[in-house]
Amino acid sequence: MFDVTRFATAAQSIVDAGQFLYGRGWSPATSSNYSARIDSDHVAITVSGRHKGQLTTADVMVVDLDGRPVQSQCKSSAETLLHTVLYQVFPEVGAVLHTHSVKATVLSRLIAAGQALELEGYELQKAFSGVETHEGALSIPVFDNTQDIPALAEDTRAWFLAHPEHPGYLIRGHGLYTWGKTMADCLRHVEAFEFLFECELETMRVRP
Amino acid sequence: MFDVTRFATAAQSIVDAGQFLYGRGWSPATSSNYSARIDSDHVAITVSGRHKGQLTTADVMVVDLDGRPVQSQCKSSAETLLHTVLYQVFPEVGAVLHTHSVKATVLSRLIAAGQALELEGYELQKAFSGVETHEGALSIPVFDNTQDIPALAEDTRAWFLAHPEHPGYLIRGHGLYTWGKTMADCLRHVEAFEFLFECELETMRVRP
Amino acid sequence: MFDVTRFATAAQSIVDAGQFLYGRGWSPATSSNYSARIDSDHVAITVSGRHKGQLTTADVMVVDLDGRPVQSQCKSSAETLLHTVLYQVFPEVGAVLHTHSVKATVLSRLIAAGQALELEGYELQKAFSGVETHEGALSIPVFDNTQDIPALAEDTRAWFLAHPEHPGYLIRGHGLYTWGKTMADCLRHVEAFEFLFECELETMRVRP
Amino acid sequence: MFDVTRFATAAQSIVDAGQFLYGRGWSPATSSNYSARIDSDHVAITVSGRHKGQLTTADVMVVDLDGRPVQSQCKSSAETLLHTVLYQVFPEVGAVLHTHSVKATVLSRLIAAGQALELEGYELQKAFSGVETHEGALSIPVFDNTQDIPALAEDTRAWFLAHPEHPGYLIRGHGLYTWGKTMADCLRHVEAFEFLFECELETMRVRP
Repeated sequence: MFDVTRFATAAQSIVDAGQFLYGRGWSPATSSNYSARIDSDHVAITVSGRHKGQLTTADVMVVDLDGRPVQSQCKSSAETLLHTVLYQVFPEVGAVLHTHSVKATVLSRLIAAGQALELEGYELQKAFSGVETHEGALSIPVFDNTQDIPALAEDTRAWFLAHPEHPGYLIRGHGLYTWGKTMADCLRHVEAFEFLFECELETMRVRP
Repeated sequence: MFDVTRFATAAQSIVDAGQFLYGRGWSPATSSNYSARIDSDHVAITVSGRHKGQLTTADVMVVDLDGRPVQSQCKSSAETLLHTVLYQVFPEVGAVLHTHSVKATVLSRLIAAGQALELEGYELQKAFSGVETHEGALSIPVFDNTQDIPALAEDTRAWFLAHPEHPGYLIRGHGLYTWGKTMADCLRHVEAFEFLFECELETMRVRP
Repeated sequence: MFDVTRFATAAQSIVDAGQFLYGRGWSPATSSNYSARIDSDHVAITVSGRHKGQLTTADVMVVDLDGRPVQSQCKSSAETLLHTVLYQVFPEVGAVLHTHSVKATVLSRLIAAGQALELEGYELQKAFSGVETHEGALSIPVFDNTQDIPALAEDTRAWFLAHPEHPGYLIRGHGLYTWGKTMADCLRHVEAFEFLFECELETMRVRP
Repeated sequence: MFDVTRFATAAQSIVDAGQFLYGRGWSPATSSNYSARIDSDHVAITVSGRHKGQLTTADVMVVDLDGRPVQSQCKSSAETLLHTVLYQVFPEVGAVLHTHSVKATVLSRLIAAGQALELEGYELQKAFSGVETHEGALSIPVFDNTQDIPALAEDTRAWFLAHPEHPGYLIRGHGLYTWGKTMADCLRHVEAFEFLFECELETMRVRP
C-alpha cells in the first residue's frame, strides 16, 4: 500500500505539469502521459486518453513498478511500461514525462534509421542535470515506433544500462521521453529538449 | 420545433469552441463557422460574419437539415450546406467545425490538383475516433474552392458515402472541415489535424 | 474644436487596439502608430514612442487633418501625415492602423523594387470590406522606406486616388498601413493581412 | 553599503523582466541572467540557476563591480563578470539583460567565425537608443562561447571601448547581451533584437 498524502502530492505535480505542457502545445489532442514516483513500489500516472490541459487529480491513478493498476478500476496509458522501466532501473528518478510536440515528431522522422540526434556546442545543454559545460556532445537515440510496448520497454532498459547519464530519448513520429529526480528537473529537461529540437530544425531549414 | 435547453447547450458549446479556436489563430478575421446538432431535424450554427473570439449565444442561430433558418431573422454562413450534409449523412455526428488556419490554407494550396494529403506513421493519427494504431495511412482529400456551395455539398456527400471512416477534408486556399460525435471529439480532431498539418509543412521546409 | 466624448471613445478604441496588436507581436519595441477619426477635422492618434501594449488614453493626442497638434503639447508620430492623408482622401475612413510585424517586414524586403505583393485564390480575401469572392486578385504596393514623410504621403495620396478600392499598402522593411470605416473593420483588415503575409512566407519557404 | 530601497526597486525590475522574458520563450530552462544598477559600486543580479518565470526578489542578490557577493551567501551567475564589466565601462548603464532565445542561438551559430551580424534597412533599428534613422547599418559581433568568463569579459571590454555606441552582442550557441539606461530601455532593446533576429532567419529560410 502507498501513502495517500504522497499520492496526492505526486498527482498534483502531474496536473500542474499538464497545464504547462498543454499550454505550450507539447501535449495536443489527449496525447502524452506523465508519471511521478510515490515510493519504491508505486507510481502515480495519467489515466489513458485524458485532455492534458484539463487534468484533475481524478485523472491520475496508481500503478506498481510492473505497470499493474493499484486500488483502481481505471486503465493507464498503453505506454505505462515505458515509464515503469525507468523507475525500476533508476532508483533516484522521481518523475517521467512523455510529450508529443511538432518539433520532436518532425525531427525524429527526419533522422535516418539507426542514427541518433547529435547535439553539440549549445550553452543550453547545461540545463540537463550533471552537464557542466557546453563543450561536450549529447547523443539522443531514436527508437522506431511500435505497438509492441513490452519489447520497446526492454530495448530502452538495455539502453539505460549502457548510457545511464543520458537525459532522454525519442520515438520516431511519436515524441520525447525524459526524466529527472523531481518534477521540476523533469520539466526543465522538457524545456531544454524542446529548445534544442527547435534550434536543430531552424538550422536545417536554412541549411538543409 | 426544437427543445430550447438543447439549443442553449449546443450554442454554448459553439461559443466555447470559438474562444479556443480563435485563441489558437485558427479562425481569424471573422472567418470559420461552427455547428452542433440539437436533434434529428435541427442544428445550431454561427451567424454569418461574426468575430469568432467574441461569440455569445446571440451569435448562434438554428437551421433545419436543409440549411433553412428556423425561428430566426439572421443569415447563417454561406457554407451552411457543407454542415447540414454531414448531419444528413451521419446520424451520429453531433458537431462540425470549419476552421481557417494558415497551415491548412498553405498546405491545401501546395498539394497538386487531384491529389490528397497522405498522412502516415504519425502516432497522433490515433487521436481520430476509431483509429487504434499509427501504422495505417490517412488520406485527406482537397476539394477545389468554389462559390457554388450546393454543388460542393453534393461532392462532399458522394465522398462521405464512399469513405465513411474518414475524419475530415480540406478546401483549397480555404480551410478544414472536421466532425465528431461530440464537440469535444470534434475539437480533438481539429487539434490533431493542425498538429499533422504543421508536421507536414515543417518537413517540406527541410525537404522541399 | 472637437467633442470630448467623441475623443474619449476614439482614444479608448486606440488603447484597446494596442493591447491586441502588441499581444500578437505586431507592434514591438514602441513601434507602430494608430489613429481614429473624431470628426471631419480631427483625428485621435498615438503620441510618439509609447509602448503599444501599455497605452492609456493619456498616450493619445488630437491632430487636425494637416497633422498639427490640437490642444496638446505632445509630439505625434513622425508618420502622422501618412494617417491624415487617408482621412483627407476618404471621408468614410474612421480608423487607420500602422503595424510592424516580422512577416510584413520580411515580405516587403523580399519583393523586388517596383513589384507589388499579389494575393490570389485565398478565401480570406473576403475579410476585406467590399470583397465578395476569393476569385479576384489583390495587389498590395510596396513603397520604399524614407525619412521624407511628406513626400511619401503625397505618393500614397496619388495611389489612393488611382486605387480607391484597395485595403492597404506596405513600406519596405517597415510595416503595414491599413484602414477601415470602424476600428473593428480596421482590426479585421490587420488580421487578414497578417494571415495572408504568413501564408505567402510559408509558401516561399517550401517553394523558394 | 547600498541603499535598501534602491536594491528593492532594482530587484523588482528584475523579477518583472523575468516574467516578461520567460513568457516570450527567451529565457527557458533556468537559463539567462539579469542585472540592474543600485549605485556606482553595487549591482542587483539574479542568483544562479533560478527559474526566470518564477523569480521573487529572494532570487536576486547584490554584487560589487568586480562581481563579488555583498551581504549574501548566494552564488551569482558564472557570467557575472559579463554584467559588471558593462557597469564599469559605461557609468550611464542602468540595466543589463542576457537572454537565450532559439533565434539568437541559431543565428549566432550560422554566422561564420570572425563575421558580425549586419543589420541594415530595418525601420526597427530606430528602437535602439540614439538611432534616428533606418538608413545606417548595425554591426553585432559574435563572440565564441567559452567557459573562461574573465577572458571573455576582457574581450568585451575592449570591444565596448572601441564601439561605445553599439547596443549589444551575441555569444555563439549561447545568447544575447544588451543594456540600457533603464530597465525599460533594456527590455525595448531585447524586443528589437529578437524582432531583427527573426527577420534575418525568416529571410535566410527563403533565400538561404
